[in-house]
Parts: sequence; C-alpha cells; structure tokens
Amino acid sequence: MSAPDHDAEAASAQDVTIHVCVTCRPPDFSGEEHDRPGARLFRALQQALSSTPDAAVRLDPVRCLSVCKRPCTVAVSGAGRWTYLYGDFDADASARTIIDGAERYARTCDGIVPWRERPEAFRKGVIARVPPLPQALRDAAE
Amino acid sequence: MSAPDHDAEAASAQDVTIHVCVTCRPPDFSGEEHDRPGARLFRALQQALSSTPDAAVRLDPVRCLSVCKRPCTVAVSGAGRWTYLYGDFDADASARTIIDGAERYARTCDGIVPWRERPEAFRKGVIARVPPLPQALRDAAE
Repeated sequence: MSAPDHDAEAASAQDVTIHVCVTCRPPDFSGEEHDRPGARLFRALQQALSSTPDAAVRLDPVRCLSVCKRPCTVAVSGAGRWTYLYGDFDADASARTIIDGAERYARTCDGIVPWRERPEAFRKGVIARVPPLPQALRDAAE
Repeated sequence: MSAPDHDAEAASAQDVTIHVCVTCRPPDFSGEEHDRPGARLFRALQQALSSTPDAAVRLDPVRCLSVCKRPCTVAVSGAGRWTYLYGDFDADASARTIIDGAERYARTCDGIVPWRERPEAFRKGVIARVPPLPQALRDAAE
C-alpha cells in the first residue's frame, strides 16, 4: 500500500463516532441516572475501547437519541457516510459487538457495510439510516 | 438586522435537506413502485416546494431509510445540526406540514426546534435524532 493510500484510510477511519444514548432505560426503571442501562453501556464501551488503543472509532455520550422504546440505543456516523441507528442492546453484553460493527463501518468509504458482514445485533436492531449530506452542502457550511 | 447576520442566516438555511424515503409502503401494498406512498409523498413535496420558490429547504429522494414499520418516513438534516427522523406521514396530506417543520428547523442554528413549536405530526412521529459531528471531525473529512 502506498503512503497516500494509507493516510487516506487513517483519516477516513478516525472520524467515525459511536453516539451512545446515556439516558436510555426501560419504562419500569427507577434507579439513579448513572445506573441507567444507557449510562452503563457507555461505560462498558469506554472500558472496551481503553483496551483497544488502535480502535478506529470515538465515543460521544448523548442525552437522548429519541428512540425511547428500544433501549439501549446507539448511532454510528462519520463525515461523508450514511448514519445508522441501532437499538435493543443489552447494556452489559453488547460493547464488543457495537465496536466490531462500528469498525466494519469505519473500513467502508460510505458507511454501508454489506448486510451479511454486519453483526447480527446490527441486522436485527436497525432503527433507521440517513444518507450523508452532499459534499457541496458540507463545504458550504464550513 | 445587519448584513453579516442576514448572510449568515441565509447560508445556514440553504443547507437543510428533507430526505424522503421513496420506497416506503405499508406491508399489504402491491402496486407499482412509482405509486408507493413514499414516492407519492416525494412528488407532493416537490409540487409544494415548486410553489414556494423561496423555501429554505431542498429535497433528497432516498431508497429506504430503514424505518419500514412506520411509512411514510422522512429525515431532516443540515451541516452542524442535529438530524431528525419522522414517520407515520400520510402521503397525500402531509407535504405542507413537513415543509413547515423543516423550515422551522432551518431557522435554528443547531436543528433543535422547541418542542411546542414543532408541528404535531413531528412531535408524535419522531423516530430518532442524531447529534451533528463535531466541527473538527467535519473539517478533517474535507
């Protein structure tokens, strides 16, 4: 692989973000805010990423992704890529799966991972997707 | 209003996009693709915008937003703004409401329209929202 190709790949991967809804909770949850399943999932993702220093993704804690009926919920986005939203994650058992799915996303140029290559939890838990803004509109906003 | 403020507002509004799922259909729909409710909604939005030449939004037809259980579905996005997804729209009666909601969105700096100022169909039909990418990541991808 040539140096320019390598640089392009690195730059492309580093802008991938996992937005984690830290306020996600089931309807019957009555505990403290930091114990909400969404907050626990965020901490599990932080811990998993801390042991993966070369991970191609970053975390963004979000107070509500407005998918309240399917906790826990995350969104995966990156400049120039489709954004995907996924739900129904188990706070204590999903971190590695989410990072795996996001890293597959980071290795694409447009965010579209072939269906069969997505983790099963991504195939079953998809809530929505949104196309990227056209380059011209992204430029205009800079 | 000073000239710079006016310029900033105009530039901000022009990058707002209504992504319309043109493949949306109820489970029992068996007609032609161009008669799908999503396609009809897209044409209704085109027609409504054609009579509103100063509208602050553009249309983007999308083949599937992956919200198949709540047709018709749209997403509203803009650089530097939260993206919102809405569903449950009537193909033949929703165009003006969607444009009204998107124009309210266009008049904000971050995409967050105060709850009470959103059209009722946006309040009831919200499917998800996703925060904008940080400016630094948007710059890095240029």
